[in-house]
Amino acid sequence: MSQQSPRELAEGDPFGAATLPYGVFSPADAPDRRRIGVRYGDRVLDASAAAAAHGSAHADLLDRPTLNPLLAAGRPVWQAVRAEVRGWLDDGPLLPLEDVTLHLPFEVADYVDFYASEHHATNVGRIFRPDSEPLTPNWKHLPIGYHGRAGTVVVSGTDVVRPQGQRKAPGDAVPSFGPSLRLDIEAEVGFVVGTPAPANTPVALGDFREHVFGVCLVNDWSARDVQAWEYVPLGPFLGKSFATSVSAWITPLDAFDEARTAPPERTYPLLPYLDDSAAEPGGIDLRIEVTINGETVSRPPFASMYWTAAQQLAHMTVNGASLRTGDFFASGTVSGPEPDQRGCLLELTEGKGPYLADGDVVTLTAWAPGPGGARIGLGEVTGRVVPDRGAATP
Amino acid sequence: MSQQSPRELAEGDPFGAATLPYGVFSPADAPDRRRIGVRYGDRVLDASAAAAAHGSAHADLLDRPTLNPLLAAGRPVWQAVRAEVRGWLDDGPLLPLEDVTLHLPFEVADYVDFYASEHHATNVGRIFRPDSEPLTPNWKHLPIGYHGRAGTVVVSGTDVVRPQGQRKAPGDAVPSFGPSLRLDIEAEVGFVVGTPAPANTPVALGDFREHVFGVCLVNDWSARDVQAWEYVPLGPFLGKSFATSVSAWITPLDAFDEARTAPPERTYPLLPYLDDSAAEPGGIDLRIEVTINGETVSRPPFASMYWTAAQQLAHMTVNGASLRTGDFFASGTVSGPEPDQRGCLLELTEGKGPYLADGDVVTLTAWAPGPGGARIGLGEVTGRVVPDRGAATP
Repeated sequence: MSQQSPRELAEGDPFGAATLPYGVFSPADAPDRRRIGVRYGDRVLDASAAAAAHGSAHADLLDRPTLNPLLAAGRPVWQAVRAEVRGWLDDGPLLPLEDVTLHLPFEVADYVDFYASEHHATNVGRIFRPDSEPLTPNWKHLPIGYHGRAGTVVVSGTDVVRPQGQRKAPGDAVPSFGPSLRLDIEAEVGFVVGTPAPANTPVALGDFREHVFGVCLVNDWSARDVQAWEYVPLGPFLGKSFATSVSAWITPLDAFDEARTAPPERTYPLLPYLDDSAAEPGGIDLRIEVTINGETVSRPPFASMYWTAAQQLAHMTVNGASLRTGDFFASGTVSGPEPDQRGCLLELTEGKGPYLADGDVVTLTAWAPGPGGARIGLGEVTGRVVPDRGAATP
Repeated sequence: MSQQSPRELAEGDPFGAATLPYGVFSPADAPDRRRIGVRYGDRVLDASAAAAAHGSAHADLLDRPTLNPLLAAGRPVWQAVRAEVRGWLDDGPLLPLEDVTLHLPFEVADYVDFYASEHHATNVGRIFRPDSEPLTPNWKHLPIGYHGRAGTVVVSGTDVVRPQGQRKAPGDAVPSFGPSLRLDIEAEVGFVVGTPAPANTPVALGDFREHVFGVCLVNDWSARDVQAWEYVPLGPFLGKSFATSVSAWITPLDAFDEARTAPPERTYPLLPYLDDSAAEPGGIDLRIEVTINGETVSRPPFASMYWTAAQQLAHMTVNGASLRTGDFFASGTVSGPEPDQRGCLLELTEGKGPYLADGDVVTLTAWAPGPGGARIGLGEVTGRVVPDRGAATP
């Protein structure tokens, strides 16, 4: 077993012993040899090798090309493995991040995207539906969501090819086809389901932690021109389905215990299955930063979200829908009340653009307060826009 | 190898040698021993055993608990296996349908539901949006679709528990929660993707057959009260996600060669990637019958659909989205121009109900004209509505 030292991290490193997110990596010299790693500072603990060296009962769960078996193992195992990993930091094999390839950490079952920021929904409603109330009448009674395309969820670092599609400007007589002229980002937070639930057994608010394994960042790339033309009446489709980028690292939910925060005061009383007024605080005080080509364009505060992830999970299952290991749901764009806290260019530019140019690199990072002043990090999500496929256009 | 005779089918049997749909079954005495079968009349050819007995090179593909490996093998293999199966009808092991258990025949990757009947979209638009034009401006320029929940696709015969959810009647001040009071059906036709396509390689209209393995029936159960309250602005979610029933049998696309029919005349010229005016006819002359408790309530004609499955696949991938083996897309409710050709109770009762009662059994069947007067059948989709979970209500 290789060893490196010193193992101390710089103060404030968001990937210290209080964070310990899981990912799937392969060493540079064996790209097909995927296994589970844990990020520690700028290095990756080879959890599979450490588990084997320590004779862990969970070694088999960690010697896998995806997190799904660990996700399916359930919360007691998640807690046991996390405690073991802490013990392996002293002598386990650590590889520099730049020496490994990171992969999509889990197989996505169903992907659901919510719309949980009141500020975002209000801003977008004003732009997309200027003649109506910005918030639809249902918005404050249920967490609005829709299913996205699981097959196009990609890991951070994947290039995003500019999508093509139909769009029609209000003044045009007929739609035209071509590369999106209004390619946008959406800064979101995603939740990874571990423990499944059979049909017709809704997940109550208080059971959230039994089912959700961890948290990551999400960039829900959006072609605004395609979306605006297609989305009435059945919702977004091709404007979103070309790519959704997620962190290579899934930070366990337990890491956010000190970051719990109460969501905003509710305008209306909620139906019992959504009423969290007597529950533990369901928000998370995650501070997101969005950069484009290295320049900070926004700092969306996740604590400002009207609907919590626990409410979203309760809603998603209240009709009887089952949950599977690998189900993934995202918060919707995180936008705070201030102009420099908006999570997409549509809002940041008030619908006027500019949007993303070819070559632009978008990166989301985030951290939350942890124990004793520590920072709890989410793995970054980064992606570069590359030109449309050009000649391959049908 | 067990044998039965005579092997001749009654004239007009929709599951003759020109049909040969694939499914996954287990014998009654070995419920965990799933493998691939082919329906022949009222019997199931054990394709796995027949392939082994005949020394088929494809025996391994057929000795599987799901169709996915066969789907992934590609069209030349589909054609070769279909030819082999024809040869096995004479002496292969046939089991009575009542002696086997049928399973969901494939693992669903992403599920997309379209909205391709002009009659349905017009009727529903009038009911849901009485103050607007029934068809949205985009409807005749692109096949509108949205992603559904892959994890709740169930095989024909599965009971459907009445879903619960929020609903708000127009006169109510606030929403209420409870079992859906407007549980409906949607008679649809589904298409199963076999050959995948990488990102940024759209599937042109002419390549449809290279990617789509086969066809089945779909009942897209819909809670109209839940749907009406939730669906603006991001589309249907919990009103649909509790269950979607599909046939146990997937009929190969090649079986419908004689049933090809031209879609209705287009109102507007279509963008090149959707323009099928010079292509082979993209419609299928499938005649669907909907029964409730054994009584025929509708005969929706699939030939009347405005958008074809080839157009839907071209649209779904034109933005750069990849396709996976097991991707599944459904046509949307099939409704013809006549009142007794409507594919859901919302339309059949003009929004007034009654909707489904507990205990109701809904069954869809369909056939298309085949060679020499033969009928080409789709496996039925049947499901019984059972009461909501009652005490488990949160």
